[in-house]
Amino acid sequence: MVLELRIPHGAGWAALREMVPEFLSYLLSFVFLGIYWNNHHHLFHVVDRVNGNILWANLHLLFWLSLVPVTTAWVGKNPSAPLPTAIYGVVFLLAATAWLLLQAAIIRHQGAQSKLRAAIRRDFKGKLSFGLYAWAVALAFVRPWIAQALYAIVALMWLVPDRRIESRVD
Amino acid sequence: MVLELRIPHGAGWAALREMVPEFLSYLLSFVFLGIYWNNHHHLFHVVDRVNGNILWANLHLLFWLSLVPVTTAWVGKNPSAPLPTAIYGVVFLLAATAWLLLQAAIIRHQGAQSKLRAAIRRDFKGKLSFGLYAWAVALAFVRPWIAQALYAIVALMWLVPDRRIESRVD
Amino acid sequence: MVLELRIPHGAGWAALREMVPEFLSYLLSFVFLGIYWNNHHHLFHVVDRVNGNILWANLHLLFWLSLVPVTTAWVGKNPSAPLPTAIYGVVFLLAATAWLLLQAAIIRHQGAQSKLRAAIRRDFKGKLSFGLYAWAVALAFVRPWIAQALYAIVALMWLVPDRRIESRVD
Amino acid sequence: MVLELRIPHGAGWAALREMVPEFLSYLLSFVFLGIYWNNHHHLFHVVDRVNGNILWANLHLLFWLSLVPVTTAWVGKNPSAPLPTAIYGVVFLLAATAWLLLQAAIIRHQGAQSKLRAAIRRDFKGKLSFGLYAWAVALAFVRPWIAQALYAIVALMWLVPDRRIESRVD
Repeated sequence: MVLELRIPHGAGWAALREMVPEFLSYLLSFVFLGIYWNNHHHLFHVVDRVNGNILWANLHLLFWLSLVPVTTAWVGKNPSAPLPTAIYGVVFLLAATAWLLLQAAIIRHQGAQSKLRAAIRRDFKGKLSFGLYAWAVALAFVRPWIAQALYAIVALMWLVPDRRIESRVD
Repeated sequence: MVLELRIPHGAGWAALREMVPEFLSYLLSFVFLGIYWNNHHHLFHVVDRVNGNILWANLHLLFWLSLVPVTTAWVGKNPSAPLPTAIYGVVFLLAATAWLLLQAAIIRHQGAQSKLRAAIRRDFKGKLSFGLYAWAVALAFVRPWIAQALYAIVALMWLVPDRRIESRVD
Repeated sequence: MVLELRIPHGAGWAALREMVPEFLSYLLSFVFLGIYWNNHHHLFHVVDRVNGNILWANLHLLFWLSLVPVTTAWVGKNPSAPLPTAIYGVVFLLAATAWLLLQAAIIRHQGAQSKLRAAIRRDFKGKLSFGLYAWAVALAFVRPWIAQALYAIVALMWLVPDRRIESRVD
Repeated sequence: MVLELRIPHGAGWAALREMVPEFLSYLLSFVFLGIYWNNHHHLFHVVDRVNGNILWANLHLLFWLSLVPVTTAWVGKNPSAPLPTAIYGVVFLLAATAWLLLQAAIIRHQGAQSKLRAAIRRDFKGKLSFGLYAWAVALAFVRPWIAQALYAIVALMWLVPDRRIESRVD
């Protein structure tokens, strides 16, 4: 789960310019992983005890996130190709699914008094992200840049940390 | 101990299809390492204090697990070759041995009242895994895919976390 | 954020001598990252609670620091080229900006009684580093070695940990 | 500070045999790093508070240990060459020096009642390691295998964790 940038081939401006797509995909993935990191921090604030299901749901999330460095480097190397752009979104779509399963495992373990259920409520932003990811994956095969713009929109949408949980915890 | 996937050579479906064996070996190893991670979490739940022997037994386990990324990439690159398939299993056989030694070091340190000994009892699943790994290593030289199927069976068998310990801890 | 050195090409003294610029840039970046690590340790000593802004300010700092391994390897490979030398400084200039934003986010969260504000006061060293980084980036295009010498001076200047905070904490 | 093994070139026994020197240097370095890890664990058992000097002494130790993966891979690739064998020992000689400086920084901070000073006493094993490392570096230029044997002896000598500290802590 360690994002990596390769060293530019050469020492001049042309070598640096050539890095732009790789840098942008690196930046976007850093923001996405940062969002997961921050929301994960907030999520486990309302978790007192874990069980086996929660550990597995957490590992399931980690699995998809562990693929992000490869998909990031792939799309960075082929910024105008449909397939890498689509796969980039598929991995985040699956990570988002894993996130929902993790929340569900925590809520089930906490039972009727679940603090997390109270904090999340309708989860409009989560559902909207899903829709945007799904559209992006489909549109990657029409115009890759549209998909890439949608990924950037989802990232911006989540840059504000999840105040719903935060307000319950503080 | 960081599993890695290489970037596909090319941006099309052929490049992606070519990655399938590497992806499957990555997935299998992720599950195995996740099993160790989860069971390790449960194991140290019943450990109050560590001594030098436990630290070394733990490092011994880490040594074999640290070889998993190399054996995973090797078998992923040569999915139909007997030797990489066998070595993949040998490393997990040695990791399983290290796991038993770690349990034994903890039980010895805890003495007669060992909570871990009470939690483990006959350890049927552990002994069965041993047998399956050993058969897989031998059968890798006959048909690599049989060995690979056996690895998948062991992984599935352990996907359920070790409830024996969990039930004592909760 | 893991600094890396490549293995020398060959087994003799010539191969080792060839590594000198890469080793020096590795050493310099190790010191810079060590400074951040140490000051970060001292900084969070005076932080009791974090909020979303602090988490994001922290990730923003991590983003720039995560680029250090690439810029380090790039300048190590091209020690006499202006652009890699300048970019090396730009990344640390941006990391220093992120550090100030992190301090500001903590002070805002702590309010009027901020222990951090009392500990930092005029922050002469911080401002001087800024000026030196900025001069280094500009001078990299005149004589790269002048910029490299300025980086080394900033590193030496910070090698002494931030006693202003330490004295308040102890 | 992450040891790495490369994937064998090929899928047969010859490719595996070719890995033997790399595997042995990996194993030796794993043991050395494990020794530092274990002793570090014991060392910080007798440390209640850290100051800036201790943090820097710790980073100084980490610097030399962070070079171990490169020197390990270099000697693994050139097992019969004198220079890589000597440099491998030089890095551990410098790490051992850094360890002594770290102990000294802790003892100075703890003052007259230092629990660590009482636990260490004459440190015969530490002084002997120093001598063996120094001889190994010199003898690497005569017969590399003698130096390699001496490294293995030092590793074996330290495999038993530092009971002097342990006995005081327990």
